[in-house]
Amino acid sequence: MDVISVIRTKRDRGELSPEQIDWVIDAYTRGDVADEQMSALAMAILLNGMNRTEIARWTAAMIASGERMDFSSLSRPTADKHSTGGVGDKITLPLAPLVAACGAAVPQLSGRGLGHTGGTLDKLESIPGWRARISNAEMLAVLDSAGAVICAAGDGLAPADKKLYALRDVTGTVEAIPLIASSIMSKKIAEGTGSLVLDVKVGSGAFMKTVEDARELASTMVGLGTDHGVRTVALLTDMATPLGRTAGNALEVRESVEVLAGGGPADVVELTLALAREMLDAAGLPDTDPAKALTDGSAMDVWRRMIAAQGGDPDAALPVARERQVVTAPSSGVLTRLDAYGVGVAAWRLGAGRARKEDVVQAGAGVELHAKPGDTVTAGQPLLTLHTDTPEKFDYALESLASAYDIAPAGTAFTAAPIVLDRIA
Amino acid sequence: MDVISVIRTKRDRGELSPEQIDWVIDAYTRGDVADEQMSALAMAILLNGMNRTEIARWTAAMIASGERMDFSSLSRPTADKHSTGGVGDKITLPLAPLVAACGAAVPQLSGRGLGHTGGTLDKLESIPGWRARISNAEMLAVLDSAGAVICAAGDGLAPADKKLYALRDVTGTVEAIPLIASSIMSKKIAEGTGSLVLDVKVGSGAFMKTVEDARELASTMVGLGTDHGVRTVALLTDMATPLGRTAGNALEVRESVEVLAGGGPADVVELTLALAREMLDAAGLPDTDPAKALTDGSAMDVWRRMIAAQGGDPDAALPVARERQVVTAPSSGVLTRLDAYGVGVAAWRLGAGRARKEDVVQAGAGVELHAKPGDTVTAGQPLLTLHTDTPEKFDYALESLASAYDIAPAGTAFTAAPIVLDRIA
Repeated sequence: MDVISVIRTKRDRGELSPEQIDWVIDAYTRGDVADEQMSALAMAILLNGMNRTEIARWTAAMIASGERMDFSSLSRPTADKHSTGGVGDKITLPLAPLVAACGAAVPQLSGRGLGHTGGTLDKLESIPGWRARISNAEMLAVLDSAGAVICAAGDGLAPADKKLYALRDVTGTVEAIPLIASSIMSKKIAEGTGSLVLDVKVGSGAFMKTVEDARELASTMVGLGTDHGVRTVALLTDMATPLGRTAGNALEVRESVEVLAGGGPADVVELTLALAREMLDAAGLPDTDPAKALTDGSAMDVWRRMIAAQGGDPDAALPVARERQVVTAPSSGVLTRLDAYGVGVAAWRLGAGRARKEDVVQAGAGVELHAKPGDTVTAGQPLLTLHTDTPEKFDYALESLASAYDIAPAGTAFTAAPIVLDRIA
Repeated sequence: MDVISVIRTKRDRGELSPEQIDWVIDAYTRGDVADEQMSALAMAILLNGMNRTEIARWTAAMIASGERMDFSSLSRPTADKHSTGGVGDKITLPLAPLVAACGAAVPQLSGRGLGHTGGTLDKLESIPGWRARISNAEMLAVLDSAGAVICAAGDGLAPADKKLYALRDVTGTVEAIPLIASSIMSKKIAEGTGSLVLDVKVGSGAFMKTVEDARELASTMVGLGTDHGVRTVALLTDMATPLGRTAGNALEVRESVEVLAGGGPADVVELTLALAREMLDAAGLPDTDPAKALTDGSAMDVWRRMIAAQGGDPDAALPVARERQVVTAPSSGVLTRLDAYGVGVAAWRLGAGRARKEDVVQAGAGVELHAKPGDTVTAGQPLLTLHTDTPEKFDYALESLASAYDIAPAGTAFTAAPIVLDRIA
């Protein structure tokens, strides 16, 4: 077996054999296949695709590259959720304690943000004292005591994926559906959850810009999960406009706590509940009503235990950015568009995200939205507030917002898009 | 300018801008663009192509990455030739002194073999004492005194190409016509020749397997040369069967000396003369008859001076392999096929070629052909002789020859393919 023949097979539109896939993933993990060889293969896969058989084997080989976890010692069924990432997508924060409050065990191995989409760990790290990196044993202990845990994935889980993901990120090969699907599912299957709900984002702020691409990605992942004995369902959800009214780290934690307190923006509550119902259903707990756990304080109780178990102080004041600048509405009328990508890039440029893996994010940076599509606005009223510790970045952030919204004359009809666009099981 | 946006442009079937091309070639040469990023771009170029404008700019950027040579101090017009490589292709060896004997100055910056195609420098290094690596000043001196020089290209010539070629070789991205054309032509244009004849090989033993692909490559290169003021013409020549009766290093030198002595295999003589006529024509010396220089000893005189000027002893005995094995004809009849690729791989496995750049080649290894397509053979007569210092490789070499030839019943009609298939100017 040699790597050039594997690359040539895919380059020439052939099907990779199971032996070729097993060999190349193993050899890449061991360092016998070089980065420049794997990136050429990744580009060939991006352009020429992989069929279902190839994707399944590729995923299995990535799972086999590392350890597998086992939650069978827990007394409760496990329910996991994965989002493909978007702007203002803080849903994991209220969702994990909510579903735990309804009786499932919720392990959430999460990631950091890169580019214009935020990362769950970056958001939680704005809580003073909270630690993302804990051992597998600690993770099981938090899951057992609090009912939910959100933490960084250990190095032992699908190391091939860890290495390949970092490579794809710098070689323009992120946007390949077979590679996205196998990356997500290898970690989720290796993690050992019994059920999984996928939140596949569609729109300007998401990787998948069209419903067709999102549907293909979702059905690929549902197929992979099902084949590995994980009850898997996917919701396609809207990411044309940011979720909620904040994009940033501490800003989103604050909004998540509002939801757990029974308040918060309507779209965040709606999506949190829709995903919670799917997770409870997949975990075999279909009769529980999650809406009640948001109003009776039980979800908030889990949140406080979960944060405290990882060293965080749930009562501590959250960091606030040193500087802010308000963007006002240039005219009166109806806000008909507020673009997720534009807002995401602005939050990123203000310091909420990172351009390189080694960058440090600002806890307080981000964008606050004072109006959402469908709202009536008056000329001169605040539309957005930008937050940052580095005010020299205001102009750079404003550039990405210049054409990020439309205001139509008052009385213009506006129909809001539904948040959940489709369901694939 | 960032490399991911350049990769994405080509990945998404866009046209690279002149600025993108200049930037990425310069940044790669300086090491600011990593190998894994360039290989992803090379694969995208291989699969999505480049148009004429992009190829011209890519070539110009590679020329600009290094120094340019200048032959204007010579009293004679320069004529250069490049072959895309084949099995038994020793043509450069008799051709360079022949054309020099007819009045042109012939600079031949040559390469080493990799894979199943041999390298001119490897062949000449089987001559005791001969040195491939000489300074630019020495090169000009040999060219001036002997009329022809064959040597390794200096490190200063198109360093971007040197780095990119080594990368393509290990990433399955060799077979991209835009990259092959710009690689060859950047070196030839930087070298500063006034005229250039391209020998584009077609067939199983060549990179280009079809006449269509070869024609596309040839016309791309002719266009690039013409645009840069180099009179350029290309011949498409047959590489379905090996050239001459030997494939190997010392074996091919011996055959080349036979041609310079007025003998040698008919196909080698025919192609050498066809290329010589094109070179003399392109150099503005159309009235000279090269056939005469092969019989009157003048080409041999140049050969001897040229070899001696680089430390070689033209009278020294050439190395001979320690072991040989004869393959006999399994039946009587007409040899209708002798596959260049099969013979090339056998010679390579016997030690004439290298699998990795750092490998050392055997001077005496290779394959001798006792019959050529069209010849009548008798069961049991020698068909091929394998030569090697490592007899444990005989079986491995024989594998590649097992289906490399066909013998049809005696009397079967056979029409030989012409050696020169097409001419593009």
